This record gives sequence, structure tokens and C-alpha cells, in this order.
Amino acid sequence: MTSPEPTPDAKTAPPRSPAARAPGAADLVITGCTALVHDEREQIGFVEDATIVVRDGRIATITGGPPDPHAAGPDRPPVPVDLAGAEHIDARGQVAMPGLVNCHTHTPMVTLRGIAEDLPIDEWFNDIVWPIESNLQERDIELGARLACAEMIRGGVTCFADHYFSMDTVAAVTAESGLRANLGQAFFSSQGTEGREQSLDFALRHRDTADGRITTSLAPHAPYTVDDADLAATAALAREHGLLVHLHAAENRDQTDASLARHGRTPIEILAGAGLLDTDLLLAHGTGIVERDLPLLARATGRIGVASAPRGYLKFAWPTTTPVRALRELGIPVGLATDGAASNNSLDVWESMALTALAQKFTEADPRRLTSRQALHHATLQSARAVGLGERIGSLAPGRSADIVLVDLSGPHTQPVHDLAATLVHSARSGDVRTTIVDGRILMRDRELLTLDVPSVVREMNERMPALVDRAHGGRIQRYET
Amino acid sequence: MTSPEPTPDAKTAPPRSPAARAPGAADLVITGCTALVHDEREQIGFVEDATIVVRDGRIATITGGPPDPHAAGPDRPPVPVDLAGAEHIDARGQVAMPGLVNCHTHTPMVTLRGIAEDLPIDEWFNDIVWPIESNLQERDIELGARLACAEMIRGGVTCFADHYFSMDTVAAVTAESGLRANLGQAFFSSQGTEGREQSLDFALRHRDTADGRITTSLAPHAPYTVDDADLAATAALAREHGLLVHLHAAENRDQTDASLARHGRTPIEILAGAGLLDTDLLLAHGTGIVERDLPLLARATGRIGVASAPRGYLKFAWPTTTPVRALRELGIPVGLATDGAASNNSLDVWESMALTALAQKFTEADPRRLTSRQALHHATLQSARAVGLGERIGSLAPGRSADIVLVDLSGPHTQPVHDLAATLVHSARSGDVRTTIVDGRILMRDRELLTLDVPSVVREMNERMPALVDRAHGGRIQRYET
Repeated sequence: MTSPEPTPDAKTAPPRSPAARAPGAADLVITGCTALVHDEREQIGFVEDATIVVRDGRIATITGGPPDPHAAGPDRPPVPVDLAGAEHIDARGQVAMPGLVNCHTHTPMVTLRGIAEDLPIDEWFNDIVWPIESNLQERDIELGARLACAEMIRGGVTCFADHYFSMDTVAAVTAESGLRANLGQAFFSSQGTEGREQSLDFALRHRDTADGRITTSLAPHAPYTVDDADLAATAALAREHGLLVHLHAAENRDQTDASLARHGRTPIEILAGAGLLDTDLLLAHGTGIVERDLPLLARATGRIGVASAPRGYLKFAWPTTTPVRALRELGIPVGLATDGAASNNSLDVWESMALTALAQKFTEADPRRLTSRQALHHATLQSARAVGLGERIGSLAPGRSADIVLVDLSGPHTQPVHDLAATLVHSARSGDVRTTIVDGRILMRDRELLTLDVPSVVREMNERMPALVDRAHGGRIQRYET
Repeated sequence: MTSPEPTPDAKTAPPRSPAARAPGAADLVITGCTALVHDEREQIGFVEDATIVVRDGRIATITGGPPDPHAAGPDRPPVPVDLAGAEHIDARGQVAMPGLVNCHTHTPMVTLRGIAEDLPIDEWFNDIVWPIESNLQERDIELGARLACAEMIRGGVTCFADHYFSMDTVAAVTAESGLRANLGQAFFSSQGTEGREQSLDFALRHRDTADGRITTSLAPHAPYTVDDADLAATAALAREHGLLVHLHAAENRDQTDASLARHGRTPIEILAGAGLLDTDLLLAHGTGIVERDLPLLARATGRIGVASAPRGYLKFAWPTTTPVRALRELGIPVGLATDGAASNNSLDVWESMALTALAQKFTEADPRRLTSRQALHHATLQSARAVGLGERIGSLAPGRSADIVLVDLSGPHTQPVHDLAATLVHSARSGDVRTTIVDGRILMRDRELLTLDVPSVVREMNERMPALVDRAHGGRIQRYET
């Protein structure tokens, strides 16, 4: 029996407009895509012809098949979803996946992209990068961060962990860009106690700002530039304030060897001695982690994550890469990263995903691992955990933040599709990301950036460049001696 | 003194139309770009605000500054160039460089992209690829070649060396696509003498077809599938007919070890014994070239080139990559390649360029080499030489074929530019190629393919896929046993 009368629901519903929508109304609905999801064992699968409903910045539902606002069931919203006022993206031919996470970068360093090429790391630091960084003005930081955010949004990155200086400025740009980030104000012990105090001050002032998109960390530079007392004090502050600690450690094998020669301890042993393995810790690179470090990492009571940026390790000709297999056996997540563009030449996390798979196959002399699904697990849940956001992002599931990228697979280089995971990891490129969404807000739509203006940034950056790259002063912010 | 009278040239000039242009009239003029050029020592440099004039499919002139049809001088055309009827590309903000060359691929294998993942090479061949290849019909070849050409044009590839079966079909698609290619009909000794005869027949029928864009080679599969007598006969035919020989050899270290165990000779020693090092030879991969091979290669009287496809070596977890340094010391050009998409997952030569730089730094444990300029030398002149076209393509210079790609550097990931060579190799991506030109003909303009229709190819390919990938028959075209 049908009735021409409006239903009670419709009678009482307020007018449909984005500004005044019904309680529970959807903000964004994505239809027709193939959605990358994780099952209860975290195995990666794909939902065909999926509809993703976003409400209040979170994923409300993901269902297979076309949208049906009134259906209910195990895979359906228990409450009818009001789609009428929602923004709609028709994503046929595209894959929806969790936004990528750049687990370790220095955004303002895009300004130095390509300025220190084909050098070993000591010359890279001492002759080029650290001298130039002593010229950096707030405006350089701001322009660099803006360009970096633009690059990441275009490459499907929705969250990044940044470890640099002048982080108030980076925080402001992050807020403006719409991206999610974990930010830490870096410090050296050469700054006295002031560096550590500023790092804490930054972390406390900015935590959970930008509508909760910004989280923060304490950011000692590295065990070779921050002394034991400073590291121990950092660990105490991290525990007291419930903060993540983000630092470089055991970046390469030379650092580990030098640390053993000088202190009789590996960088990881130094962290353990400072109590840092009992804090939540984001450890950048770790290609110098050695066998004797593994028991210490196994006993760690903090949540440890490692960020791997494999392109830079090849470019610096380091002999090892992040020991992903050993870390997996310890249950330590390995997230994907690019490091700064001055070493990596891009903030292309998609490339890091592919290179992680390739570098691990080569290193382990085993073509069977990493599989593409394993690489996607690193790119999603493991990256989210590494930056301390394992409960909020990293998978497309109801309740998670709507940090979503839509990837176009219609190009000739991604066809045909026999194995979608392989297509994503080994055939698709960052440039295939068409749409980038954070907290349900569209930051790029059909390759058009909606929050940042690249040409004006590039214009001003180039005007400022001569003053920035001048090394005639002979100074540098620090000296690299492992 | 100026005169309102038309000049004698203008008086006698025929009407300006593409169909009836003045003798010597330009067909295409590219202005405002930065042009990658080689000096007399083959060092790579860049000409700012360059104008490239194309006439009759060749580069007529490259000059710095805006176009000036009446100027003459060392860097200017000696004869005035008639620009009036020419097609014009305003390429401000873009780099013009020689089109990339894919020095070793199997175009129709794009059909199998992603179907045999994360496997060692023996299982990859015996369990998946060779069984499926026994199902291939001409139409599959045609669709695959078409998709591959589309992918390569979009990735800035203007020439490829293809080594496969049903090459009459590939030749027809090549002609249709507008690309340049060196094509060889592959054969195994298991085919009897017929394979070799067909390879010769193909090479003679198709050489210098498609307005000279198609050159040909003899294409024995490899020393482990083609016996010594067949290799020797191939060498004799190559000398008799002045043909290039294109084959797989010393693909990996296991093959070299197996060859030594079985025959007491390395694959390169087998080629030498067959007389193949005294023919013009394009050798695919060569990661199994060992120290004892080097004197033989040094004594070779043929023009030897090696094609390197480094992504696949990492993916198969091979322990070595192409020995670029050793080959350079012998004066042997190393060109860039992708191999087929069934192993490489794409035909992205741009990625091969970056990975060659990274893999060589890692392998040599020296971050100073390959530099970006060295990588660009491999991508240009060395690749042209490897496929036997060293006099016709590989540099932007008057008289060379107008095989040009225009690369957009306005994206945030390629800014700022401190070192243009580094930007091209390490920051730019194949997707940054906006325009692809072969013999002066525009095959892609502003990312739009002008000679191929991808959606129709993909649609039909997917319809045919179930029959193609069926392995229930239990057959295979060959068995991989090194």
C-alpha cells in the first residue's frame, strides 16, 4: 500500500542546505568506486561499486553497491542516511583508499630540492644544507611548507609527520592547507636547555589544534646531536605530558659504527638508556639498526614506530635499508616516508611505497616479500600507527576520519587490472590521484588544488632564493659528525 | 631603408597551407622552452628560451631567444625559415628533451601486467607467463601493442626496441601509433630452423618501413633457449644483411652460473663463440656479466649496446644490476628499458632513468655516480646508440629526427629548480610529459593522445581476458631452465 502523504520523517526534516542540514545528514557521498578495506585480521581487500558516506568529517558507512539511504543490515547504516544535502563525487573507475601518510619529513626543505646533489651525507649536511639553513627566515619556512603541502595533496598524502624548525609557521600553513599532521619543533643540545623547552612549549600549545588535525611531538634531532641528559629529560617530558617523541636514530650503518666506537653503545642502546623506548616513539630511518638492538626493541614498553624513506638510502649509497622483516617480527610498525625533498627530491610517498616493496625484495633476496598487499599495509595501518594515529586514520571504516584519496585507474599504464593491489603499488603513480579528502573536506578535486596557490608561492620563493642560498657567511646551524 | 613592397621571397611563395607550403618552410615551431642539448664532448647543457624549428620531420634549428626567421649567425639558421604556415607550440615553463627510448620491451605483454606477481623468475615463466602466452591470438597482440604504444607516448617514449612474437601485427600498430621502433621477431631453437627464418623474413620485409620509423633486428630469444648453431647462423645472417641482433643474455647471475656449470662458458662467451660479438648487438639486461666477460666485450668488433631495466631486477630480487661502470669503461652504451609490463608493471622509462641512477649509486657504494647528467646521457645518446640509431635520434640537434618531448615543470613537485638535470631525473615523473613528438608529428598534445583510443582497446581486451588467461590446457610455449 503506497500513500501520497509525505512520510513523518520528511514532514519534520529541516530545509536541505549545507548550512542547516538535518542531524545525521551526510556531508559527502562517494559512489561507484572500488574501496580498499581491511578485514578483522587486517588483510587488505576491495569492495566493488562502493558507496562511502561521510558525516561530520568521519566515515559513516562503506557499502557495496549503489547508495540506498533506507536500507539497513549488517553492511548498511542502521539509521537512514540523509543524502539530499550532501556533496556527491561520482568515482566510477577510481579506487578509494586511505590517504597516504608521510611519516617523516621536513616540509620547508622543499625550498632546497636539488641543491645538494650526488654527495655523501656529511658533505650534504656540512657544505650545503646546514650552511643554507642558517639563512632561513620565517617567510622561507612558510613558502616551503605551503609548496610541500601542495605537493603532498597532489600526491595523495593526507597526513605528515614534520620535524623541523619554526614550527609555529608550519602549523599555521598546515591549518590553512587542510592537511593532518603531527608536528615537532626540532632541537639540538647545542641550543642548551632552551631547545628542549621550546620543543615542549610548541607541542603543548599546538596539540589538538586545527580542529584536531594537528597533533604534536617532542623532537630531539638525533642521538649524535642531542646528549644523553637531554634525551633522558625528553623522555621524562614525553611521559609527563603524554607526547610522542619523534627523532632520527640509527639513520645509517656508519652512525651505528661510530656510536659503538665512541660510546660503546648503538644509537638504539642510547635511546634505551635514556628511557625513550618506554615512551611512544617515532624513529626515522633505522637503517643502522643491528641485531643487538632487537632484544631492546622487543622489550620496549612504549609504542615504537619506524619511518622508512628508501629512496634517500639508495641516493646516499647507504649499504642497508630499514630492516622491515626484523621489525615486523617484533610487531613494530614501519610507516612510509620521504624525508625532506633536499635528499629525496620529492615528497612522493607513492614512490616510497613501491620502493619499499622493491628494496625489501632485493635486501631479503626473496621476490615473494614484500607483496603488494604488504606494501599497502605499510602505507595504511602501519603508517597511521607510526605517527600515533592508529585509531583514527589508516583504514576506510566507519568511525575513522574521512581521510580518503581517489585514484584514477583509467590510464593505459594501469590497465588491464589482474591484481588490484599490484596495480596500485607497482603501476599507479602519485599523479594518478585525482581527489584528496581530509576530515571529509576536499583539498584537491580532479587534480585542482582547492586550498593552496602554487604559482604565487613559487614566484615569491624564487625572488627570495639568492639571499637564501648564499653561503658566503661561512656559518652553519650544526656540524655532522657521527 | 624599408620598403612597403613585398620581398621577392614573399612574392613567389605559394599559399600558406600545411598541404602546400614553401620549399624549406617549417612544419612545427616550438618556442619558449628550455632545451636539453649536448655539446661536442657530449656534456649535457640547457638552452634557455629556446626556439626549435622542425622541417620535414627533422630538427632544422635550435636557437636561444625568441624566434627570428631572418637572423643568421653561428647559432642561427643560415637560410631564413618560413614560419608562417608552421604549427606552433608555446612551451614556456616546459623543458624540451629528446624523446626517451625504451631499449628492450615486449609491448604485447602489457596484457599480462600484474598477473604474475611476487614470484621468482622460473615460476613466473613456467607457471604463469609461458602457459598464458600459448593462448595469445593476433588480436591480443594487436590490442596489447596498441595499449603499450599509448602508455609509452604518454610517458615520453618516442622509440622502443621490441622483441616478441607476431611482429607483423606489432609493426602495423607501430605504424599506426606514429612511434619509432626497432622490431625483432623472437625465436627459440625448439622451433627448428623455421624460427630463425621467420625472424630474418620479418626483418627484411619491415626494415625501413613506416616512413623509415621502423628498423628491424634478428631476435634469438637467449643463449639458454637458442643453441650454438642457431646463434652462429644468426650472426652470419646479421653480417650478410647488415642487421642488428637483439637478444637476452646473462640476464642474471644464476644464468651465468648455470651456463658455466653446464657448458663451462658464460653466456657472453657463448655469444663470442657464435660470432655475435662481431655483429651489431643489443643485449638485454646483462646483470650476469662477470669479470671474465669484459676482455671479450672489449675485443668485440660489432657495435654492442646493453639495455638495462633495473626495476625488474629488484622485483625478481636478483643480486646484481647491469654493470654500468664496467661497460662505460669499455665504451659500451647502456640504454634504458622497462622489459615487458608483466615483470616491470609499466613501460615507464622515466622511472628506469631514476632507478638506474639510484641502483648504480647503491651498487657502487658511491653517491657521486651516476650523476643526474650521466643518467640523462644514458637516457638520450646511449639509448639511441643501443638500438642502432645513434646518428638519427638521441639529441636535439640540427639534422636529427624531431623526436621531442615537452616536460611541464610547473607542478609543486618540480619546484624550485636549483639543478635542472636533478629536477628531470629525480623530481619529474613520466606524467609530467605534456607533449610527445616523433618525426615532427605530434602524437600527444597537452596529455591528449592523438593517434590511439585507449578506452576501446581496454574494453575489448577485458572481454578477451578470460580466454587468454586460461591455463587449464597445461601447455606452455617454452620451459625456463637456465
